[in-house]
Amino acid sequence: MDPRTKALEYAVSHQAEFLEQLKDLIRMPSISTAPENNGDVQKTAEWLAHKLTRIGMKNVQILPTGGHPVVYGECICAREKAPTVLVYGHYDVQPADPLELWTAEPFTPEQRGENLYARGASDMKGQVMASIDAVEAIMMSGEPPVNIKFILEGEEEIGSPNLVPFIKAHRELLSCDVALNPDCGMIGADAPTITYALRGLAYFELRLYGPEHDLHSGLYGGAVHNPAIVLAELIAGMHDADGRITLPGFYDRVRSLDAEERAQLARLPLSEAHFLAMTGVSALFGEKGYTPVEQVGARPTLDVNGLYSGFIGAGSKTVLPAYAMAKISMRLVPDQDPAEVQDQLIAYLNAKAPKTVRWELTNHSSSKASISDIHHPAVKSLVDGLAAAWKTAPLYKREGGSVPIVGDMQRILGVESVLTGFGLSDDNIHAPNEKLHLPTWYKGIQSLIHFFYNYGQA
Amino acid sequence: MDPRTKALEYAVSHQAEFLEQLKDLIRMPSISTAPENNGDVQKTAEWLAHKLTRIGMKNVQILPTGGHPVVYGECICAREKAPTVLVYGHYDVQPADPLELWTAEPFTPEQRGENLYARGASDMKGQVMASIDAVEAIMMSGEPPVNIKFILEGEEEIGSPNLVPFIKAHRELLSCDVALNPDCGMIGADAPTITYALRGLAYFELRLYGPEHDLHSGLYGGAVHNPAIVLAELIAGMHDADGRITLPGFYDRVRSLDAEERAQLARLPLSEAHFLAMTGVSALFGEKGYTPVEQVGARPTLDVNGLYSGFIGAGSKTVLPAYAMAKISMRLVPDQDPAEVQDQLIAYLNAKAPKTVRWELTNHSSSKASISDIHHPAVKSLVDGLAAAWKTAPLYKREGGSVPIVGDMQRILGVESVLTGFGLSDDNIHAPNEKLHLPTWYKGIQSLIHFFYNYGQA
Repeated sequence: MDPRTKALEYAVSHQAEFLEQLKDLIRMPSISTAPENNGDVQKTAEWLAHKLTRIGMKNVQILPTGGHPVVYGECICAREKAPTVLVYGHYDVQPADPLELWTAEPFTPEQRGENLYARGASDMKGQVMASIDAVEAIMMSGEPPVNIKFILEGEEEIGSPNLVPFIKAHRELLSCDVALNPDCGMIGADAPTITYALRGLAYFELRLYGPEHDLHSGLYGGAVHNPAIVLAELIAGMHDADGRITLPGFYDRVRSLDAEERAQLARLPLSEAHFLAMTGVSALFGEKGYTPVEQVGARPTLDVNGLYSGFIGAGSKTVLPAYAMAKISMRLVPDQDPAEVQDQLIAYLNAKAPKTVRWELTNHSSSKASISDIHHPAVKSLVDGLAAAWKTAPLYKREGGSVPIVGDMQRILGVESVLTGFGLSDDNIHAPNEKLHLPTWYKGIQSLIHFFYNYGQA
Repeated sequence: MDPRTKALEYAVSHQAEFLEQLKDLIRMPSISTAPENNGDVQKTAEWLAHKLTRIGMKNVQILPTGGHPVVYGECICAREKAPTVLVYGHYDVQPADPLELWTAEPFTPEQRGENLYARGASDMKGQVMASIDAVEAIMMSGEPPVNIKFILEGEEEIGSPNLVPFIKAHRELLSCDVALNPDCGMIGADAPTITYALRGLAYFELRLYGPEHDLHSGLYGGAVHNPAIVLAELIAGMHDADGRITLPGFYDRVRSLDAEERAQLARLPLSEAHFLAMTGVSALFGEKGYTPVEQVGARPTLDVNGLYSGFIGAGSKTVLPAYAMAKISMRLVPDQDPAEVQDQLIAYLNAKAPKTVRWELTNHSSSKASISDIHHPAVKSLVDGLAAAWKTAPLYKREGGSVPIVGDMQRILGVESVLTGFGLSDDNIHAPNEKLHLPTWYKGIQSLIHFFYNYGQA
């Protein structure tokens, strides 16, 4: 029997043990935000380090950070020049409040039907254990096909405040060819999903200053340029009639979608009706020539996130405001560069802002888009793995938002991430009665076993 | 000696008495906003009623309102069909705090050089007494040339909450041909000024509703029309490149300026440099083809008084806002109608607002512009009166703001107001060390004597 078949069978025959171990992990309330749970967080890290050691991982360490520790472990395969996969996960969980809305104890996992109910079951102890279980099955079935490293952090639910310094301090240890991040979900139990791209972000605050102080709109209105109106005019000029962004050169580096990728995105069950239902708008609006899925995932956008000027209380005040402010952010796609986008915005403002106002631009956030080409060997390996486990062609998804850890790894380690996961949209993560759909989870373990073998052969 | 000359001489020979009586009036701290001063307010009303009676006014009454009373008095001249002037004034004053910034006691008038220092000296007990003193001089010199009525309220400094019901309830008593309001100031001690027009106001709140709730700008940005951007586009479209307002029909009823009026406005010492200094802007901006004085006084304008949408705190939040709000107001000139302007705004929104948003418009305030033709006999009588007292041609001014009482009298009594007054811009009204420039005040009394005689002959 070849190692892959052996590993797949091992995983099937050990489902009961895998489930029991997941329950053990869940029983430790590793709530990262609650100081009274610091001991539980530490115990959880120790439990995972022990588990990694037990399945044969080497160099297992509980590494300190400024907060909760990172659990690290690796297996380096015998084959020369084998690629390395860095598996990211987090072992901390959200608090369980409000407790009264839980049907059962949040940290006492309870199986009902096909689901396992408990805090952390889906987000993401289930996903962490699916990854470890897949690697266990592989390790027990012969030489692993690729190098595998785990980085399991304990502070994701509080915003990973210590992760960037940690990655920077451990560049060598964490070096890899690709990152696997199973913290994303699936579109449905029968719709295995791979997220191969995220948009980047360039977030600015624009302030326009007019008169030295608020003026009486009766005494000065008509002779003084109103900064709120100037701001409106500048914002209005940032899109043309086709919904395209007018900043000079904005689309120069935008990677276009080819027919294959558009066909894949068209398979997603995210119709116009879906977007209408999710947002409650009466009609969608976006760049002409693209579907909503393409508009939110594969095309750059410019949004106003906040607007302020003058008097915004109830009733009326006849003020001509001294200044006006807008938060303006662009979602970026490959190969746009946030620094270049800032230059484009500055060029636009230099060209369009009238001399009657003074403007100031502040950058609040900058990150590049992340993308793994759908022909990248890791993407293809995961797609084939998901297909083998589900016996259906997986969906390719581009996510419109950003995932900070993905950007951090891209920036610091120079690697892209592929995102997947075996949670479902009705798993109640961050809410009472969180659950994990076990049949999906078992398929997930199988798909990850395939992934590692596929990637080893790619 | 003719009555006019007699009256003018009476006023000169009684300057000392006039000043002493003004001081007596000032000594009563008629602070309308302070309940502990209610007795002082009442005493002040009684003092004025007594004074009006003493100079020979008839039908003198202290009329109750929902708050502080109104003092009324009249003299009806023997001549048939003589016109009637309604003199408006207020006898209440601002509080004196912060007391520590006063050089002397605020309610103990102190003469230093040419100025009399005290709370209320300029705003507007000095102006009230100038009017009464002028009428006294006339009454003591023969038959008055016109009918004169006084309406002296005690709540101007708290927004005249009871004045509109009072005027409505006393339409017959207050009937007149023109109102004289000496609550405006002069541009300079050597620049007697008459304000013959005020702009009206139409003040709206526009709300645009997009998605049902704030959305994640990463997940939905690009497929959902951003209400803050739509609002910016709608506002941007409200002016053309020449600074003209694009609402359909907006200028149809705007009365144009003739050469004579433009020449008068050009005499005002309100240059571009004045506007730059007062506002601190680096360059002025307004409707092409008009001077700043014309833009703020004689042309209608549209300003944004407030803007709000989404996240306006420090830093960044990647929200696609559910709604956006603007406070938008138009300053109106004769013969614009606020109700028609509202229809024009609605027509604009119906034509321009996209189907991706829903909009709501609220009207917060509506008032017509007020104007007395510069050839109106009352305007001409006042101009000639000021010219005779100052021996210089007075300035004609159109004020860009609104004065509520002027609009109220226009609406309820159907009369226009002419505004003047003998306060100066450095009088520190509403501030510590308020003062009145006595030489200007004495000239003011002379000018009002001329005004009444001139108007009687017009």
